[in-house]
Amino acid sequence: MISELATPSPPPEEEAHERPWEELSKVIEAEDADRLVELLEDLTSEETRRALSRLSNEDQQRVVAMLDAEHAAELLESLPEAQAVDLLEEMEPEAAADIVEQLPDNIGADLLQEMDSADSEAVLAELDDADEADHLRELTTYPWDSAGGLMTEAFAAFPATHSVGHVLQELSENAEDYSDLDVQYVYAVSDLGELRGVLRLRDLVLTPRHRKIEDIMIRDPNSVQALDDLAKLAGIFREHDYLGLPVINENGVMCGVISREAVHDAAAEHLAEDYLHASGIVGGEELRSMPLMHRALRRLSWLAPNILLNLVAASVIAMYEDTIQQVIALAVFLPIVSDMSGCSGNQAVAVSIRELTLGLIRPKEFLRVVWKEGLLGIFNGLVLGLLLGAIAAIWKDNAWLGLVIGGALWLNTILSVLLGGLVPLLLKRFKIDPALASGPILTTCTDMCGFFLVLNLASAVLAKLA
Amino acid sequence: MISELATPSPPPEEEAHERPWEELSKVIEAEDADRLVELLEDLTSEETRRALSRLSNEDQQRVVAMLDAEHAAELLESLPEAQAVDLLEEMEPEAAADIVEQLPDNIGADLLQEMDSADSEAVLAELDDADEADHLRELTTYPWDSAGGLMTEAFAAFPATHSVGHVLQELSENAEDYSDLDVQYVYAVSDLGELRGVLRLRDLVLTPRHRKIEDIMIRDPNSVQALDDLAKLAGIFREHDYLGLPVINENGVMCGVISREAVHDAAAEHLAEDYLHASGIVGGEELRSMPLMHRALRRLSWLAPNILLNLVAASVIAMYEDTIQQVIALAVFLPIVSDMSGCSGNQAVAVSIRELTLGLIRPKEFLRVVWKEGLLGIFNGLVLGLLLGAIAAIWKDNAWLGLVIGGALWLNTILSVLLGGLVPLLLKRFKIDPALASGPILTTCTDMCGFFLVLNLASAVLAKLA
Repeated sequence: MISELATPSPPPEEEAHERPWEELSKVIEAEDADRLVELLEDLTSEETRRALSRLSNEDQQRVVAMLDAEHAAELLESLPEAQAVDLLEEMEPEAAADIVEQLPDNIGADLLQEMDSADSEAVLAELDDADEADHLRELTTYPWDSAGGLMTEAFAAFPATHSVGHVLQELSENAEDYSDLDVQYVYAVSDLGELRGVLRLRDLVLTPRHRKIEDIMIRDPNSVQALDDLAKLAGIFREHDYLGLPVINENGVMCGVISREAVHDAAAEHLAEDYLHASGIVGGEELRSMPLMHRALRRLSWLAPNILLNLVAASVIAMYEDTIQQVIALAVFLPIVSDMSGCSGNQAVAVSIRELTLGLIRPKEFLRVVWKEGLLGIFNGLVLGLLLGAIAAIWKDNAWLGLVIGGALWLNTILSVLLGGLVPLLLKRFKIDPALASGPILTTCTDMCGFFLVLNLASAVLAKLA
Repeated sequence: MISELATPSPPPEEEAHERPWEELSKVIEAEDADRLVELLEDLTSEETRRALSRLSNEDQQRVVAMLDAEHAAELLESLPEAQAVDLLEEMEPEAAADIVEQLPDNIGADLLQEMDSADSEAVLAELDDADEADHLRELTTYPWDSAGGLMTEAFAAFPATHSVGHVLQELSENAEDYSDLDVQYVYAVSDLGELRGVLRLRDLVLTPRHRKIEDIMIRDPNSVQALDDLAKLAGIFREHDYLGLPVINENGVMCGVISREAVHDAAAEHLAEDYLHASGIVGGEELRSMPLMHRALRRLSWLAPNILLNLVAASVIAMYEDTIQQVIALAVFLPIVSDMSGCSGNQAVAVSIRELTLGLIRPKEFLRVVWKEGLLGIFNGLVLGLLLGAIAAIWKDNAWLGLVIGGALWLNTILSVLLGGLVPLLLKRFKIDPALASGPILTTCTDMCGFFLVLNLASAVLAKLA
């Protein structure tokens, strides 16, 4: 102990658990459940995530199995959703059910929703409380990014006929129950649970105790339907300053509260998804802790169609083998034209997706995009075409080659930015995720046209090139 | 009017202002300031954004000029930041100063920070209140995504020696002032403004009125420094359930409150930025309402270096013109190998960026990435190589061609996923934005190696191919 005091201690956050998975491995080997709980409590949730993702699948399972349901639930809550789902799927349904019982309903429902439906039904069947199972089953019918999927079911609601004093007394007597909620609003409901009004906590505090809440509540408050989607929710929270909104089910009964924060989180998740989709990570998030084959096959599910699209585009080259035979230099420029057109088009895709997200453009406003991208394409295509054309002409000392390459890149850049700008709008209209599908559609078209333009122009002036 | 009643009215949200910019144009032509204010109040902020972005730059200026400072400030608040900055920059400093005075300080500071420093200094010099100018100048020293940049300066703080009753009375007497704040916490400070403690509003309500707040406050509460960056803030809010945290300047004086929501918003902005950067939109957000040349030149600033990198990669092809001359089919497969390797590598880039964001990996953990991506690359490369190799062999009825193409794609896929996985970690270590730079570095390397592998293998077995 003395030596510990004598040497300066390392900065606690950075170094305390530099390799937390090694400690974790030791505890698993020793099968020391108490030490495991201690260790997990000691780790920050970031350290926990990193440590778990370093363990083999079997060891991850062993960690969860060593914990009681309550601690296991806590652990799952701190993991990325994809990882928590994998762990639950591989457990016995009975053990998984014990853990789900300990999770907050909305988190439990999220995880069940992501599981295979056979697995999740097996878990629901093992829940001790049939009402709870029915309730979770209902929650899983709401998409994760709908109001029903994002709401919390814990809220403070009172009959509209109660007095302010009564409500305040209830709140303070049950302060323990409410302390986990972020109570900003108190809701007034009918006997059937239908929403009647809303009160801010501070209005309650500043009102004489004998008045009925229906006299001071805001009547017919804004609310959302459980199936309202994220775009609608984001719009409402953007327009108004609400911290939260009541959620109503199909019978008009208040079933939860959706917070501004939950909507913001979901929007951030969507953006992250856009980025992953645009990069060819499909079918859900990939973490390197997932099994190799799972990761490999999911990536292939995107790459394999892509290779076919590439073949379609390259078949244009195959039709012009004679031309290439006579002007081998063309083979050098084909990949450049293909890559540069892809880059120009992807810029336009990103701007369209961003403008759709910001509400600056609607999916049917094609003409505006044609105008704005067309002009830009004419200019940028000219600059890039002059640059590449000059290099080609100087390299082979042949102005005609420069004209062919530069002209093809110019025309193809115009086409690329037009397509790149329009494809996301089109996909959005047909309710296909623009981030997912824009890239492959764009590059296949621009590759085909790029190869065609280079080789067709070259064929037309072949005598000057050869 | 009768005919209007007789026909079913269109859904109000969708159709009310289908083309709001046309109404706006008319009002500008008529120079009818009153009607302009009415119209803007009638439009949702989404409609306002769309309408403004449809107007020419001059007309946007005219709209702002027709409004008094208060309404102009409201308008700027509803626009995307890049657009608001452009408008302010083009105004006379005096007029801009009038508007900045009407903006909340943190928003004003954000806009000033984004302006050219000469422009923003000119605006600050025109502010009537020199203290206000100094204060804004100080705020602009905090990066937008630091605690100081994200905090609000409006909060409820009282000397620690005040009684609960006194504080509650202050709060209710100044309910008007506090109604705009989302008061969740009340802060206790020293005479010099140093943070001493924090109280939750509900604790205050449930405590006898005569007690001093220092007796019931939570002492030495968690706080952040004004210059703390987003990664640190996100970590703290991930670990703890706080709705907000006090922000302390370098002298220990409490200068603001940062909310969970502000941190979430900033994180979402970062994700959106990653996506734009990865797509080659650099130097700030692009909106199609911006001037053509501005958009074109910013896109070119990314495309022009890319074309040079492409030339470097394609120079490998130029060295093997003789080989291509004898086996023209190679020209068909070069762009395919280049594109597929780019796709595989980009998947690995996206997973690395995501794992860095989620805190699942640290920038120095190379070996883990090598191991996880290497195995995946061996498998996926084999599948893709077999697929493309078989197609090549069947098409030209030449097994050797299949071996060359398939083998090259196999090896290059392994290289691509390794590079794609590692480059973001490396860039992060050198504090370069991984989303921005990973793509070009990756594709240049994988193109060069892909071309080299195809053409070098082909040269080695040229007799069998020709």
